[in-house]
Amino acid sequence: MSEDRVLLAHGDGGQLMAELVARVFVARLETGEPPGDDSAILPSTGVYPLPSHVVFTTDAFVVDPLFFPGGDIGRLAVCGTVNDLAAAGARPVALSASFILEEGLLIRDLERVVDSMARAAKEAGVKVICGDTKVVPRGRADRIYITTSGVGEVPQGVSISGGNAQVGDMVLVSGPLGDHGLAVLSRREGLEFGCEMVSDCAPLAGMVQDALAAAPGIRAMRDPTRGGLATALNEIARQSQVEIEVEETAVPVRPAVATACELLGLDPLYAANEGKMVVIVAPEQAEAALSALRSHPLGQEAVRIGQVQAGRPGRVLLRTALEAHRILDRHVGEQMPRIC
Amino acid sequence: MSEDRVLLAHGDGGQLMAELVARVFVARLETGEPPGDDSAILPSTGVYPLPSHVVFTTDAFVVDPLFFPGGDIGRLAVCGTVNDLAAAGARPVALSASFILEEGLLIRDLERVVDSMARAAKEAGVKVICGDTKVVPRGRADRIYITTSGVGEVPQGVSISGGNAQVGDMVLVSGPLGDHGLAVLSRREGLEFGCEMVSDCAPLAGMVQDALAAAPGIRAMRDPTRGGLATALNEIARQSQVEIEVEETAVPVRPAVATACELLGLDPLYAANEGKMVVIVAPEQAEAALSALRSHPLGQEAVRIGQVQAGRPGRVLLRTALEAHRILDRHVGEQMPRIC
Repeated sequence: MSEDRVLLAHGDGGQLMAELVARVFVARLETGEPPGDDSAILPSTGVYPLPSHVVFTTDAFVVDPLFFPGGDIGRLAVCGTVNDLAAAGARPVALSASFILEEGLLIRDLERVVDSMARAAKEAGVKVICGDTKVVPRGRADRIYITTSGVGEVPQGVSISGGNAQVGDMVLVSGPLGDHGLAVLSRREGLEFGCEMVSDCAPLAGMVQDALAAAPGIRAMRDPTRGGLATALNEIARQSQVEIEVEETAVPVRPAVATACELLGLDPLYAANEGKMVVIVAPEQAEAALSALRSHPLGQEAVRIGQVQAGRPGRVLLRTALEAHRILDRHVGEQMPRIC
Repeated sequence: MSEDRVLLAHGDGGQLMAELVARVFVARLETGEPPGDDSAILPSTGVYPLPSHVVFTTDAFVVDPLFFPGGDIGRLAVCGTVNDLAAAGARPVALSASFILEEGLLIRDLERVVDSMARAAKEAGVKVICGDTKVVPRGRADRIYITTSGVGEVPQGVSISGGNAQVGDMVLVSGPLGDHGLAVLSRREGLEFGCEMVSDCAPLAGMVQDALAAAPGIRAMRDPTRGGLATALNEIARQSQVEIEVEETAVPVRPAVATACELLGLDPLYAANEGKMVVIVAPEQAEAALSALRSHPLGQEAVRIGQVQAGRPGRVLLRTALEAHRILDRHVGEQMPRIC
């Protein structure tokens, strides 16, 4: 046990990573919050009680390659953190950015990445207000790693958590799945599939606020990044102790992504997204939420893909085109390393 | 110009790093705040005006070796961020921690680091409330890199910034300089100097709050990490547009550190500290501040080392034992890479 080593699969968002996080981090750091959500509520110290909910989140970005169709590590670092705040129902207040640079990196590549961060932050209506830079010798990093953290504020009356899903709720997704994962992977591996796949990398805080205004009955959200839709739904099913059923034929996947997945032996339900939101909403407000999502440029292809039901708590089921059911578990072993 | 590359010296806290930050980050990200302090005040969005000052900071840690006398990368990551908050006069409210792990890392080394983070956070009276983990292939990192971010709250009436120093203020330091830098360097290089040097790595928020309570006239603080005392004072002198004079004979340096510096050709005034605070205080409150620092276990060896004066704005002068003056500039070129 004590000679266990970190594997690439510990970083892919699946079962092994969940075990590592539980064993090494949550147990030792007494995070206080039940783990599961991608952000945490700032504690009120009593000295200056913080108003409403202020949420805090962090993510490291190690994507390979740095530049890919539809984005780059800088855009990803801003959108990833904004979207973790958005999944808590929060508007972004401020971001920090911390850089680990490999000796020998071209300054113009760094400039291109920082320009892209600035554009993404502007789109999201937030600023990077503090930062840090470290340099490590050649061969001790891969050009650029970025960690962004974010502070967000949750509007009064809004309470979103992966633990809030209830039996009867509807499951929506804001658009087609797998674009980011397949765009990065095909660029990294130099694969050609006839038409170029483009990452969906985008900041979703505005779309989420529109949906919340139209449907205050939204109970849980998650941006399905590493590990994709299947992992996001497994997390919510466990946190809420409910079963979630997804209709395979309802899950939107672009033809190019579906073809590439088939050729590569990948499942689009596990492929990463960086501009999509999974939304769990009370059934009577599902139409209002869908319509608000579709009215936003980033949610035009939003659809209902399933529902929350009684059954085995923590389980995610896929109802296939042939009306069979298969369990959509957390995956074990690496599917796509360094996708974000 | 466009083929410039990142050098190790871009990460050492000196002149080249200041230029890179100004050229690449500040110019592009429109951080809004005048750069210079190690934390930034969260903007008030107007929707939920944040009470008093809430400050935000981030730092990446890439220290080599991971474990050194007096600490490790985990303790460093907590203390470094707590101390950046403390330098703004803030109490820590919450921390985040983001890990980049190299494939093959021993899980027990990771556990040791996380245990150490937990202990340091407990000492500082703060919790790590959110985190992230990425894994990169062998040879794309050096075992563990950690980025911590922190949110802190500044007590009412306290306004601390490197831009607030005034002519006539006194310059204090909370204890001997260079312990961290020399402890890490001698462990990394396998050097023996007869007696072991021990890092001063410690969380200073409690000591700083005691000093602020006793001396509300404290105007500027800085924890002299990368680049040491000389760099911290240069930053304050520039931000405040004042001259600072330091008396060489008053600067505390332990004999073992002084000897090691002499043998290695290093200057202790540029060596890193991780448990010291530079304090600029109104002259009439200098005694009260000193006495409060000395009453705290982490500030027992606090002393006055100089003063703020008219003269050339932005300049730091060292008055030597022989009553000569030499300019204590930002250093150019690497002195100690990967010290934090």
